[in-house]
Amino acid sequence: MTTQQLIEQIQIKKSFLCIGLDVDLDKIPSHLLELEDPIFEFNKAIIDATHDLCVAYKPNTAFYEAYGIKGWESLQKTIDYLNQNHPEIFTIADAKRGDIGNTSTMYAKAFFDDLEFDSVTVAPYMGKDSVEPFLAFENKHTIMLALTSNEGAFDFQTKDCSGKELYKTVLETSKGWKNAQNLMYVVGATKAEYFTEIRKIVPDNFLLVPGVGAQGGSLSEVCKYGMNANVGLLINSSRGIIYASNDIDFDQKARAEALLMQLEMQQIMS
Amino acid sequence: MTTQQLIEQIQIKKSFLCIGLDVDLDKIPSHLLELEDPIFEFNKAIIDATHDLCVAYKPNTAFYEAYGIKGWESLQKTIDYLNQNHPEIFTIADAKRGDIGNTSTMYAKAFFDDLEFDSVTVAPYMGKDSVEPFLAFENKHTIMLALTSNEGAFDFQTKDCSGKELYKTVLETSKGWKNAQNLMYVVGATKAEYFTEIRKIVPDNFLLVPGVGAQGGSLSEVCKYGMNANVGLLINSSRGIIYASNDIDFDQKARAEALLMQLEMQQIMS
Repeated sequence: MTTQQLIEQIQIKKSFLCIGLDVDLDKIPSHLLELEDPIFEFNKAIIDATHDLCVAYKPNTAFYEAYGIKGWESLQKTIDYLNQNHPEIFTIADAKRGDIGNTSTMYAKAFFDDLEFDSVTVAPYMGKDSVEPFLAFENKHTIMLALTSNEGAFDFQTKDCSGKELYKTVLETSKGWKNAQNLMYVVGATKAEYFTEIRKIVPDNFLLVPGVGAQGGSLSEVCKYGMNANVGLLINSSRGIIYASNDIDFDQKARAEALLMQLEMQQIMS
Repeated sequence: MTTQQLIEQIQIKKSFLCIGLDVDLDKIPSHLLELEDPIFEFNKAIIDATHDLCVAYKPNTAFYEAYGIKGWESLQKTIDYLNQNHPEIFTIADAKRGDIGNTSTMYAKAFFDDLEFDSVTVAPYMGKDSVEPFLAFENKHTIMLALTSNEGAFDFQTKDCSGKELYKTVLETSKGWKNAQNLMYVVGATKAEYFTEIRKIVPDNFLLVPGVGAQGGSLSEVCKYGMNANVGLLINSSRGIIYASNDIDFDQKARAEALLMQLEMQQIMS
């Protein structure tokens, strides 16, 4: 999917919501556990109930890897279901990968070619040659960690690094990498005041924003400081939507929560 | 496996060699491609030919994920083969994972509980709460990136951060984390002179050292500056050993390369 197509979807749906598919067998409705692939059935029900309200889905690979080959199969079925039924949806493999050049190429192949995701999240610590192999894929997007929403973000990301916070050095440095136009960034919502500074460095790139809802970030605050002319934000919510209920009507409760967010987004966009 | 058991194996085998199982179907002998699972058959042959010369094997997960579910099956079979036939071998999932707390717990379960690796590599960018979930597993080891062997290491890792290079801040900060005794660190061999400084910060921890051989690092230099009383090093070689030949005798050529390294290690240890 091109960036322009993503922007169009945001305008059509009046939504910049991304739903995180972080499926934990301990948290899903018990009636699904009797089915052959409970994780896929859960995802399918959530997708069926919410796809008109969001522009992106983001499975976090950890939740699939934890179940071994069976989990990897559930991930494959989920992305296949999305690509076949909802090609207008932007798909994100939240994998936070990164390795030396030839190895990053293998990861890029895994997520872009084999699984056919539109994008993948990567970690910046190993620098340019660990990220550029992802950037080389046309119409694919590489979403790099900049400022995350967890407590540990303050361990290194906000530390002074060559005269500015490390996450700013990461943002600025990455702008010089080959095919940098394919970069998006992860910026946590729990620190809305940081968005002003971030937009000075990367005014045009999309920002994937976790931490709204369960982790305490405010949607209106993030939009106030982080939005650009194309919206430029993908606001992720995982637990707040997918675990709204663990009863038989879980998908409709998830829809209701997604609708609340979409309506708030529609208001902000108008 | 406990650290003490690893130290004993190093003494018994007079080796601190780790062999990287980074299997690329484009590089393995063509006669293997006719078999049902060429990746596993390649690994099995390499393991059978070299297990007495090394103390660790390190599959890089990227090379398995690139082949989707089939690749994940090859990884499962490889680790099962190692655990069943060579429980004395230290196993490393080179996965470079890291995410917020509950997600890191899922990754830790994937590699420690489901696949039963002894250790996993992780990235430090997201800080304490992204790494501590791995450290909570008893007799399992978390190998954190400190100073990597690629060019991109100079983008951020060696940048001045609060008065010292970022990788030193990473090392020092991590010493205060819960169960820090379960930490090892990745330190690239291409910068042997850095080992003196690193040993001042982490004198006792094991260091996993890529970059000897194919990437140009010198074994004797690394040992001169990086060894401690328990050796404290795992020297990784991947391509230099496993792709020594792509002919029918690839496993024996791999053994010959591994033997050269083991003999050099034996001399250094004596």
